[in-house]
Amino acid sequence: MNLTMSLEEKIKSSVREVMDYPKPGIGFKDITPVLANPVLMKEIVHALISFYKPMRIDAVAAVEARGFILGSILAYELGCRFLPVRKTGKLPYQTIAESYDLEYGSAAIEMHVDAVLPGNRILIHDDLLATGGTAAATARLVRASGGELAGFSFLINLSFLPGEKKLLHDFGLQPDYLVQY
Amino acid sequence: MNLTMSLEEKIKSSVREVMDYPKPGIGFKDITPVLANPVLMKEIVHALISFYKPMRIDAVAAVEARGFILGSILAYELGCRFLPVRKTGKLPYQTIAESYDLEYGSAAIEMHVDAVLPGNRILIHDDLLATGGTAAATARLVRASGGELAGFSFLINLSFLPGEKKLLHDFGLQPDYLVQY
Repeated sequence: MNLTMSLEEKIKSSVREVMDYPKPGIGFKDITPVLANPVLMKEIVHALISFYKPMRIDAVAAVEARGFILGSILAYELGCRFLPVRKTGKLPYQTIAESYDLEYGSAAIEMHVDAVLPGNRILIHDDLLATGGTAAATARLVRASGGELAGFSFLINLSFLPGEKKLLHDFGLQPDYLVQY
Repeated sequence: MNLTMSLEEKIKSSVREVMDYPKPGIGFKDITPVLANPVLMKEIVHALISFYKPMRIDAVAAVEARGFILGSILAYELGCRFLPVRKTGKLPYQTIAESYDLEYGSAAIEMHVDAVLPGNRILIHDDLLATGGTAAATARLVRASGGELAGFSFLINLSFLPGEKKLLHDFGLQPDYLVQY
């Protein structure tokens, strides 16, 4: 690893672009080479922890499935609660749900009704910010459960899509990310 | 938390049994209260790390989605590679697949073709061992990719189901778990 590279450059040199996935014309940012690089993962986690440690974070709400990977390490290192946010029907106990728009139609995500404790400050995490639909739905779940939004944390932001503007507009919070395309 | 309780007792007192999920007659072991207990999570991770640290583990292969949660913390703390094992169509790059039997029909899981480096010792992780179908399929993927099986790691074993015997029989490895029902 080149020590003169910034963390963003190191991550970008590890992310693999897979063309035509999940459909023709899309260049998918594949983070699996990042996950397979333990030295880089430590650097990423240390950067995130030094940023979030001074804030009061009571829980990390992570969006399945890729969001679970860094989200659980973040909660572990912050010493706070981990709250899974899942697609409909995947959580066993009573849930609250929020729907969000897809290109065609809509989908919904859920949280357990007892996941967020009243007044808890929740950091929302996912690997990638694109249109912001799932992150915004997660934020609405947090507020509907009586929690406060502490922030939005992503590994990657796709700046040619409206996610960053949407989260800033809807929730008055600037999302955080380590890498931008 | 009661300091005189064993780790198994602490975990069991945190796991929530949800009746009739995912279908009537099933008592589902819901680990979300464990994930929401950072003190208990630290104890779990420390127990796993002290067990696996002396072994040579090159990568943790974790089964989506719940397996990603502890699996990524394990890889992070062991300083080794994290390899996601996912349902068909969820990994963007070229994959190899293995199918396994369900109660009715079958399903398949995939790994990226370059996930396992030849000769790498792979620890397979999932949250729960039931029939052992996905864990066995993961182990076949590891071997088909040129890797060696370092072990099977679960949070929970359901001893009234044949998973433990199946993994021992098929791979000659005793699976590890912290809690048994």
